[in-house]
Amino acid sequence: MFPKSTYIQRREQLRKDIGHGIIIIQGNHEAPCNYPDNTYWFRQDSSFLYFFGLQREDLVGVLDCDNGKDYIFANDYDINDIIWTGPLPSVKELAASVGVENSGSLKDLQAFINNQIASHQAKFHYLPPYRADNIRQLSTLLGIKYDAVRSYASMDLILACVKQRSIKSGEEIEEIERAIATAYNMHVGAMKMAMPGRYEYELAGFMQGEAWKGNGPVSFPVIMTIHGETLHNHNHDHKLETGRMLVMDAGCETAMNYCSDITRSVPVGGKFNDRQRAIYNIVLAGQLECIRISRPGITYQEVHTAVSRILAQGYKDLGILKGNLDDIVANGAHSLLMPHGLGHMMGLDVHDMEDYGQINVGYDNETRPSEQFGLGSLRCGRKLQPGFVVTDEPGCYFIPALIDKWNAEGTNKEFINFAELEKWKDFGGIRIEDDILITETGCRVLGKPIPKTVEEIEATMNA
Amino acid sequence: MFPKSTYIQRREQLRKDIGHGIIIIQGNHEAPCNYPDNTYWFRQDSSFLYFFGLQREDLVGVLDCDNGKDYIFANDYDINDIIWTGPLPSVKELAASVGVENSGSLKDLQAFINNQIASHQAKFHYLPPYRADNIRQLSTLLGIKYDAVRSYASMDLILACVKQRSIKSGEEIEEIERAIATAYNMHVGAMKMAMPGRYEYELAGFMQGEAWKGNGPVSFPVIMTIHGETLHNHNHDHKLETGRMLVMDAGCETAMNYCSDITRSVPVGGKFNDRQRAIYNIVLAGQLECIRISRPGITYQEVHTAVSRILAQGYKDLGILKGNLDDIVANGAHSLLMPHGLGHMMGLDVHDMEDYGQINVGYDNETRPSEQFGLGSLRCGRKLQPGFVVTDEPGCYFIPALIDKWNAEGTNKEFINFAELEKWKDFGGIRIEDDILITETGCRVLGKPIPKTVEEIEATMNA
Repeated sequence: MFPKSTYIQRREQLRKDIGHGIIIIQGNHEAPCNYPDNTYWFRQDSSFLYFFGLQREDLVGVLDCDNGKDYIFANDYDINDIIWTGPLPSVKELAASVGVENSGSLKDLQAFINNQIASHQAKFHYLPPYRADNIRQLSTLLGIKYDAVRSYASMDLILACVKQRSIKSGEEIEEIERAIATAYNMHVGAMKMAMPGRYEYELAGFMQGEAWKGNGPVSFPVIMTIHGETLHNHNHDHKLETGRMLVMDAGCETAMNYCSDITRSVPVGGKFNDRQRAIYNIVLAGQLECIRISRPGITYQEVHTAVSRILAQGYKDLGILKGNLDDIVANGAHSLLMPHGLGHMMGLDVHDMEDYGQINVGYDNETRPSEQFGLGSLRCGRKLQPGFVVTDEPGCYFIPALIDKWNAEGTNKEFINFAELEKWKDFGGIRIEDDILITETGCRVLGKPIPKTVEEIEATMNA
Repeated sequence: MFPKSTYIQRREQLRKDIGHGIIIIQGNHEAPCNYPDNTYWFRQDSSFLYFFGLQREDLVGVLDCDNGKDYIFANDYDINDIIWTGPLPSVKELAASVGVENSGSLKDLQAFINNQIASHQAKFHYLPPYRADNIRQLSTLLGIKYDAVRSYASMDLILACVKQRSIKSGEEIEEIERAIATAYNMHVGAMKMAMPGRYEYELAGFMQGEAWKGNGPVSFPVIMTIHGETLHNHNHDHKLETGRMLVMDAGCETAMNYCSDITRSVPVGGKFNDRQRAIYNIVLAGQLECIRISRPGITYQEVHTAVSRILAQGYKDLGILKGNLDDIVANGAHSLLMPHGLGHMMGLDVHDMEDYGQINVGYDNETRPSEQFGLGSLRCGRKLQPGFVVTDEPGCYFIPALIDKWNAEGTNKEFINFAELEKWKDFGGIRIEDDILITETGCRVLGKPIPKTVEEIEATMNA
């Protein structure tokens, strides 16, 4: 946990920003896997972590904006549990440890809510719940129909949370760099394992072990695939074969749940062939362009577009795209090979605050999402500010189903050499991703550098 | 997956056993971790796996006992998803792959249920749901209040499922032995790491990595603790110190979700001291007694009691217990040092079928749970049959809070030398666990033997 003062200050700011009413921030419950007592690892809700820092299940935090009082509600463990669990702190002690002076049971919480309702002055703010048990809890607490609960989530609260959480403090950056230190071990170790005959799940398993050896979970299900062109791919059943690129997109969380998110793409066997090197260096040039130009004041939409120009020029040089570069990018022809956005915010969530609704996190009144294929998938498009942490993750994918679709429809046919593309349909995909911090004057790649150039990767794999 | 015929035969048997009505077997959904799209690993429901074998999320299986028809209901993926996911089978194709001839959408499922209700002949059977989203789904489908859903679970269905799933087939035993082969790597690797200065989470992380390298998850959260006396201990923050016993209780699931569950207890640093060796050999003698006497016809309550006699005699020899051995065991004085049961069933769940209610799985009309402390915690007490797979996991724990409680209350004071016990309060705990198959004539320890004697463990740790 951070010092108590961190949480006190964050809650004060939140109460001030909201001004009036009752803020309810639900912690998470244990998540049953295959029967009630066999649970997945406990993952506290990120908003709860940000404002209360406590890792115990079944907690509910309440902030009363009108009188400046904060509460933690939860039931204490049964005193008989001590025989099985050893001594555990009471809810009152937990609350005090993060500067919360008031606490009570879940019955007390219901009574508190009922009193607020009876006062006829109640205004409740809560965040969009994403787990069925928490939807159910809000439904019961507030008397809202289950299916209607999400529709009453507070936009004021969402925006106030986004405002605070978007700017990472020094202590948060330290935690993120700790998560990247573990990701270094995950990626460098897996690179060395990427030899023909191995199965994807062996490398994915290794990475999960390294994450847990750092005392935290993976920050999302590991992507480890020789079919990088399948973007939503969590299958790990393929055998590694020489000639395939292996896309490894994986990160971890620290014990405090700050995240890392790194992608490296390596040639199975340790030597890039000519086609692999050509595409790799185009994607790498795009990834470095993002690092070169990202700074306060530029929007990430503009950065995405600048990176797209680099990629498009590379594909033109290879004869895959054709025509005027400005027109290619303006029409999104390059998006055939990268249908996703350049990156997203990262912090206590790997897609930071995605539960608040991506548009509320990545966009604002000034910058609205694009309607264009590819750029429209950009999760964070708004103007960069010092303290933002975003991922920089361009890629290149030859997706047979998408190539065939565009070819059949004639989409962007004036810019695409479909005959040439036929030769690339068996290539697979490449993605390169780092986590960057926006500084006062530019940006900084976070963490110990993980081998990234063709030369560095080949040296690591053949060491 | 097993051959299609396996699932057809299991469903036929179930329809026959239930006789009349509609059986609903819900598959699991993705389980959100910290936002809707960031999920834990997908774990299919074990009953669904047993009868339908399919690993996709959001499936619902229905068996119509009156006309012998089986159904799979689920929504097909959007055709546009193929760009992101690659080609995926339709629900109809999935159903056919396990011999189910009828399929439909979730709208079709609601219409099917509504028709059944309208017929005024409907009788619905479902199992006790353990995830909030599945409780919600049943509530909506059947029009039962959320909080009442669990109370209408079908005891007929529970008992029919227990009947089939309790007896493991040859193909199931092969899968379980595959899970134990991975557990071998987990345990032997962790033993070698159990040196002073390491942290528990490093070894727990290693084990999780080994599990995933075998292409499946852990079968339950790893227990890896130098405080084995805290039975419900999933904390991994302690540094290993010479003089402590390290309790490692961990297993994994195969890609088909059959489980292993193994415990080994090792001295940090690799050498047992005299006290550790003394307690270890008592527990080991108990563990071997279980293997010696388990056979069809004996109840696991009787086996638990026979093991308790071995343990109690050992503690008497050490001067911790005193008095007549029969009286010690009859009064449960030995349970101070082992408050839990000897074992539980294992199969598609590590505590097999625990979602059905432990009493329905481990007991029957002939054998009822004991009221006694310790023996009362035995999860499986009934008469053993060929094909049962149970764990054999006696332990010895010096739990300061429990010792103090019994001492203060005078519980079993005629059998316990509390003065002597004071010297053991800093010992910690030891547990030894294997998975055994009941055969026609006795039992067989499943899987490749994992180092278990003092000599084997010391040799492994000092290799």
